[in-house]
Amino acid sequence: MKHETMIFEDNTLKLIDQRKLPTQIEYFKCKDYLDVKKAIKVMVVRGAPAIGAVAAYGFYLAALEFINQPKEKLKEKLNNAAEELNSARPTAVNLSWAVEQMLDLALSNIDNDKESLLEILKNRADKIADDDRKINKKLAEHGNSLIKKNDTILTHCNTGSLATVEYGTALGVIREAHFTGKNIKVYADETRPRLQGARLTAFEIVEEGIDGTLIADSTAATLIRDGKIDCIITGADRIVANGDTANKIGTFMLSEIAKNFDVPFYIAAPLSTIDRKIKSGKEIDIEERDRKEITHINGQQIAPDGIKVYNPAFDVTPAENIDAIITEKGVIRKPFKENIEVLFE
Amino acid sequence: MKHETMIFEDNTLKLIDQRKLPTQIEYFKCKDYLDVKKAIKVMVVRGAPAIGAVAAYGFYLAALEFINQPKEKLKEKLNNAAEELNSARPTAVNLSWAVEQMLDLALSNIDNDKESLLEILKNRADKIADDDRKINKKLAEHGNSLIKKNDTILTHCNTGSLATVEYGTALGVIREAHFTGKNIKVYADETRPRLQGARLTAFEIVEEGIDGTLIADSTAATLIRDGKIDCIITGADRIVANGDTANKIGTFMLSEIAKNFDVPFYIAAPLSTIDRKIKSGKEIDIEERDRKEITHINGQQIAPDGIKVYNPAFDVTPAENIDAIITEKGVIRKPFKENIEVLFE
Repeated sequence: MKHETMIFEDNTLKLIDQRKLPTQIEYFKCKDYLDVKKAIKVMVVRGAPAIGAVAAYGFYLAALEFINQPKEKLKEKLNNAAEELNSARPTAVNLSWAVEQMLDLALSNIDNDKESLLEILKNRADKIADDDRKINKKLAEHGNSLIKKNDTILTHCNTGSLATVEYGTALGVIREAHFTGKNIKVYADETRPRLQGARLTAFEIVEEGIDGTLIADSTAATLIRDGKIDCIITGADRIVANGDTANKIGTFMLSEIAKNFDVPFYIAAPLSTIDRKIKSGKEIDIEERDRKEITHINGQQIAPDGIKVYNPAFDVTPAENIDAIITEKGVIRKPFKENIEVLFE
Repeated sequence: MKHETMIFEDNTLKLIDQRKLPTQIEYFKCKDYLDVKKAIKVMVVRGAPAIGAVAAYGFYLAALEFINQPKEKLKEKLNNAAEELNSARPTAVNLSWAVEQMLDLALSNIDNDKESLLEILKNRADKIADDDRKINKKLAEHGNSLIKKNDTILTHCNTGSLATVEYGTALGVIREAHFTGKNIKVYADETRPRLQGARLTAFEIVEEGIDGTLIADSTAATLIRDGKIDCIITGADRIVANGDTANKIGTFMLSEIAKNFDVPFYIAAPLSTIDRKIKSGKEIDIEERDRKEITHINGQQIAPDGIKVYNPAFDVTPAENIDAIITEKGVIRKPFKENIEVLFE
């Protein structure tokens, strides 16, 4: 990857502005935690693992901002910042996972001197980012064991470098297969409404020199039926205890078609995406996004005034449609509930 | 419908420019058959039945243009015009159906005097357009027998007034159900890449005052699974002898999801869409359209240079996924092959 998703320097978090890719490469600068909240909310940055790391730096920026307040006030401010950051997007579990550990760490070290508290928090944010890099690489290596030479892989949304700190999850597996000389081909769904496939995955594929083809989301079914797809790999925004998986809208549709035509369907996600507190997909809160994502593209109106819009950002793929979940600790097969528990032991 | 799809007056065919809807209402003027070819090719007008009627007027414009040529030259020019018009789009059978009957009629009346030949051709073009109006109305009435009070109907692409001379096929059924007080609701797929659902179906729904909601194509699966859709109705670009149906890309995907969740899936199309010369869907020629339909929207680039694109305009839904075919002569059930033959007897 030639461009970095996030750079933290001089107490500023710089994020490649993913709303402007692939035609413009610009960095969005976050000087405080509210800038970070905004960047997550308006999707300057997206992708569950990337959001986690970004939110951790966002929390650190809040600590920097309020460190000179009296202790009780500082606690209140940090609690409030955690809540603000958490509210930026409701579905991705990595966001609350990262924010909660930053808050816990801050509160349990609140009696430390200022410099030490800040250092602890900065180190943790760095560690979350660095762990993500290492985790993705390991995950990609495990996933690569499922890829055969000359495979054609279908993917949905963006799960690459841009969705993570580096490398990627589903696209990390694809990258690893490419780097290990498997001569793979990729089909990328454009992924309406926000076109992460067209804008971001296609951008990463071209930068890496992978043989990639972009399609409308609706074209996938014909390719699958015609035997042109050897496997499907997507990321996840939240995997719950039984293996049900919330991911970008359209993932469930793909999984149904894959099931009908016996094409393996894999989810690639770090353990931090697994939310064992939730028992089944029915309980997952699905974010509904602005109607303008459907009625406008790049600010241009494409649908008439007065039409209603339903715009859920995610759907839930039931565990039974998933052949394997690829994590940094290995590939999980069914029964997911039991095998997920084993990984966490 | 407040706006007419096509108006023929003063030897000019005026077509509402569907590329500019819903934000601009402009008419594209065809003064000769090459203008008509262009209008079909660049999709000023689209929708199989509309294309048929438009091409018939296009052929009449060619006859007007060449009527003063010597007979052999006239025949050559008309044959050539027919070929040009036919080549504008490869998949819709109504195009060749209309052009061939105009050409046959011209050739079998080529010895008539000029005025009489032109009159015969003009009358036939008017009849094709007028028949389409009547056919759609009858088709809509038959289709309405499948709709229950308070049904929620999902549709794909645009099959309304804008896809026909008037009223519509699948959207004609929906219109009829609305007019007969069935208190229906409609979900319209936006229909990438050309967004006929967002631009055209949503426009017609709002104009008619039907309770309609626009969704990304990928959202349909979740609605179907969650029991929110009572039936799906789409149009067809070509139905072959065994009932296999070519229609807008995404139709096949919908039909698979409908099958998985036992939601009735209906095709609404006039008999002129049925091509009994072709035995099965495997033999249907599927048009591949320009990569820019995927990489650009309204002239703005959304995907990087260097990415390959696969952009088929249609897919083929196998007969077994279709519960009924709604025509102007009634609703056809399985076995389609036999029951289609009966309708043509």
